[in-house]
Amino acid sequence: MAKEITPRGEDYSKWYIDIVKKAGLADNSAVRGCMVIKPYGFAIWENMQRELDRMFKETGHQNAYFPLFIPKSFLSKEAEHVEGFAKECAVVTHHRLMNDPDGNGVVVDPSARLEEELIVRPTSETIIWNTYRDWITSYRDLPLLVNQWANVVRWEMRTRLFLRTAEFLWQEGHTAHATKAEAIEEAKQMQRVYATFAEEFMAMPVVQGAKSANERFAGAEDTLTIEALMQDGKALQAGTSHFLGQNFAKAFDVKFSNQNNKEEYVWATSWGVSTRLIGGLIMTHSDDDGLVLPPRLAPLQVVIVPIPKPNGEINEVAEDLMAALKAKGISVKYDQDKKKRPGFKFAEYEMMGVPVRIGIGKRDLENGVVEVARRDTKEKTQVALEGLADHIQQLLEDIQDNLLAKAKAYRAEHTTEVNSFEEFKEVLQNKGGFVSAHWDGTSETELKIKELTKATIRCIPNDAVEEEGTCVLTGNPSKKRVLFAMAY
Amino acid sequence: MAKEITPRGEDYSKWYIDIVKKAGLADNSAVRGCMVIKPYGFAIWENMQRELDRMFKETGHQNAYFPLFIPKSFLSKEAEHVEGFAKECAVVTHHRLMNDPDGNGVVVDPSARLEEELIVRPTSETIIWNTYRDWITSYRDLPLLVNQWANVVRWEMRTRLFLRTAEFLWQEGHTAHATKAEAIEEAKQMQRVYATFAEEFMAMPVVQGAKSANERFAGAEDTLTIEALMQDGKALQAGTSHFLGQNFAKAFDVKFSNQNNKEEYVWATSWGVSTRLIGGLIMTHSDDDGLVLPPRLAPLQVVIVPIPKPNGEINEVAEDLMAALKAKGISVKYDQDKKKRPGFKFAEYEMMGVPVRIGIGKRDLENGVVEVARRDTKEKTQVALEGLADHIQQLLEDIQDNLLAKAKAYRAEHTTEVNSFEEFKEVLQNKGGFVSAHWDGTSETELKIKELTKATIRCIPNDAVEEEGTCVLTGNPSKKRVLFAMAY
Repeated sequence: MAKEITPRGEDYSKWYIDIVKKAGLADNSAVRGCMVIKPYGFAIWENMQRELDRMFKETGHQNAYFPLFIPKSFLSKEAEHVEGFAKECAVVTHHRLMNDPDGNGVVVDPSARLEEELIVRPTSETIIWNTYRDWITSYRDLPLLVNQWANVVRWEMRTRLFLRTAEFLWQEGHTAHATKAEAIEEAKQMQRVYATFAEEFMAMPVVQGAKSANERFAGAEDTLTIEALMQDGKALQAGTSHFLGQNFAKAFDVKFSNQNNKEEYVWATSWGVSTRLIGGLIMTHSDDDGLVLPPRLAPLQVVIVPIPKPNGEINEVAEDLMAALKAKGISVKYDQDKKKRPGFKFAEYEMMGVPVRIGIGKRDLENGVVEVARRDTKEKTQVALEGLADHIQQLLEDIQDNLLAKAKAYRAEHTTEVNSFEEFKEVLQNKGGFVSAHWDGTSETELKIKELTKATIRCIPNDAVEEEGTCVLTGNPSKKRVLFAMAY
Repeated sequence: MAKEITPRGEDYSKWYIDIVKKAGLADNSAVRGCMVIKPYGFAIWENMQRELDRMFKETGHQNAYFPLFIPKSFLSKEAEHVEGFAKECAVVTHHRLMNDPDGNGVVVDPSARLEEELIVRPTSETIIWNTYRDWITSYRDLPLLVNQWANVVRWEMRTRLFLRTAEFLWQEGHTAHATKAEAIEEAKQMQRVYATFAEEFMAMPVVQGAKSANERFAGAEDTLTIEALMQDGKALQAGTSHFLGQNFAKAFDVKFSNQNNKEEYVWATSWGVSTRLIGGLIMTHSDDDGLVLPPRLAPLQVVIVPIPKPNGEINEVAEDLMAALKAKGISVKYDQDKKKRPGFKFAEYEMMGVPVRIGIGKRDLENGVVEVARRDTKEKTQVALEGLADHIQQLLEDIQDNLLAKAKAYRAEHTTEVNSFEEFKEVLQNKGGFVSAHWDGTSETELKIKELTKATIRCIPNDAVEEEGTCVLTGNPSKKRVLFAMAY
């Protein structure tokens, strides 16, 4: 080895990028702000997709696919949507190249200008609601529960691999309902689905809450969010679920005839998570030796390393063990590469965040044991060959649980109730994390706090307790605490 | 009912579009040439993806993701590639919209012009080989076996749902190898994978062969293809696998140091299938009553219809049956809708191509039987309740086999050996299908035949027998027959 990575304490941003690159997750590309997701990073995304897709289908959703392009005029149809959202985007103006008359490769054919420019979708509410007009005529067509896995483009000025890129992969659910209550319940349900996924699979605890008016999705009446806390004390918005009211139905004239044969506008939700989740996964668990992955999302759960190199006896034990682990649905690799020494391999698999490493050496075998190292705690133990596969299966579950418990403890430690603005600033400055504070509910106060501290309201937690209090900034009365933080 | 569809005999093109729309597979969108893939159509694509992805992984490939955009200059780097290919495409020239100063929505911000235009990928060889330069330095990095599932855009002038659309979904494999022989074998392997998928899952027999120089992918040294025959006697190119030689490695300067520490250019392949396969699936099996789906790709394999409507006894039988079928991994729906009559439902599920329909009526139950209708032959039989799930499982396999056998018989009947140009034209004109003829191997002759008849060489079959013959057009000597056809 060793691919060195910058320690977190030295430069958190550089640590993050080092892990992304050195664990082989993603890389910058020749196109400004667009990333290449490498096979190992994409395998994590595939695991996330598989579980999320299952959860979406279990809650009655179907997948579909809508066009990449949106006619420019569509973006203006929902006034707030275009105002808050769709300005920085990729605009297609022509549909043909031609040979450069001067012989220098190809140039845009000026005669192939589009009548109306097309926007590469930054999100698909407009094109989808324009389509739903044809799909929905009666209450019998509702609810319409559709999801799409897609790429989207937002022309971000400052990008960071996975966390903020010009192109990213995501899913966007777009549902249509006959009643307001049903749409609100759908938005809540998907928030719960996201929270369950984050906790059970990513081992990333999240706070479920609502965004303040200021931080809502452009065109939404309510934006629900799941907010996670990273190891540098900054919050990450990990997924959002929007109740859109009848805004898009009105903008695109989508009505249904109800059971009394009267026409009404349809109620809508949309909800999405993206490859940003991979950024959250990295920053929740990883350490100065590299990536740490929760077993349920790790592309490779167990690696077996022969010590110092493969031989007949070791191979036999390794192959039996592989078969036993595979039979339990555990992914495993036996690294027989003779050109690399065990120490090199250990560092490599630590960098990649493989949850469990098993070292098989001749001397250990004589004692009927192998060495089992867990990536999360870096603890090593001698484990008997007998019952080893069962032990590993249990260990993977323990690691999954431990990662969640550790992240929860970190969050608990870094969630601080404050009761004055001095305290607010002090905690933000020196400790970071979520700051739980009373707020008078106005956008003015929120913006003033942001201006003074750069902190934003991450959410009004769903489980916020009703209590009498006074706003940390203005002293005006407040009924509940909200969570502030610095955020990605 | 009845959603009427145009009979094939009356207007084949209209029949095709009727099926796509009335079975709920896809629709046109507000964006010229781009389609909306509806949930039922997308579910077929998901089934295709799942099987193909498994086959790719079983042959050692990993998925990754590369940028949607390609810098314009990249397209000129491989001379033949740009010449033959990349002219009709979507060109991004700007990255921002702004409010129209005149108050009419949004307009393109003229100050946000890109320094270099970006092309929405029509295929990704260029951006991927530009990336591979960083990934490959030594023979130890090879082979590199990567696949990507993605959307691509080709600005087609005349589009048809699934068969030819401006945007479509596909997978593109891009592999890098140390030797020419290995790359050629990879290209052949993927042709075999595609052929296996087409026959075993789509029940669509294909001819495996090589394209003539004229019909090769721009930038390829050899293009292998799988060619299917549609019910109107036209051929469909269903998948291609290209041996790219060192063309892209040279264009993007991708070298590796071999075992003797000498630098060499890397050898390449690329291969892809797309949502066009859904068009092929439709045109291979469907009839004048609607879609016919092979059970292995059908989103819904069995539907149970109560006759005339649900009641306690029927529900109980239906639920037991559903449980038994699900336990066998068979997808099944019990249609309890009381507002629709059985005849309406029958027509609906026929339109959707559900392979097996089970009617449960009171009188039949008294006799311990149900009515089982198979979509492919439209045959109905009384089947005993006892052992019903086993019967259905076997029936699904029979339907799968029958569809393939039927398609093979159609193809055999519509593959005609001809030995003169008169015969050639006569068969093309009156019978259609594949015309197996001797050809002198020159591009001139091929182009002349295309000009005279509109037929193209679909492929030089892998299993073509060596035989002495004379070209149907020129009378020049020929060593093997090739397949001509009119094509999509």
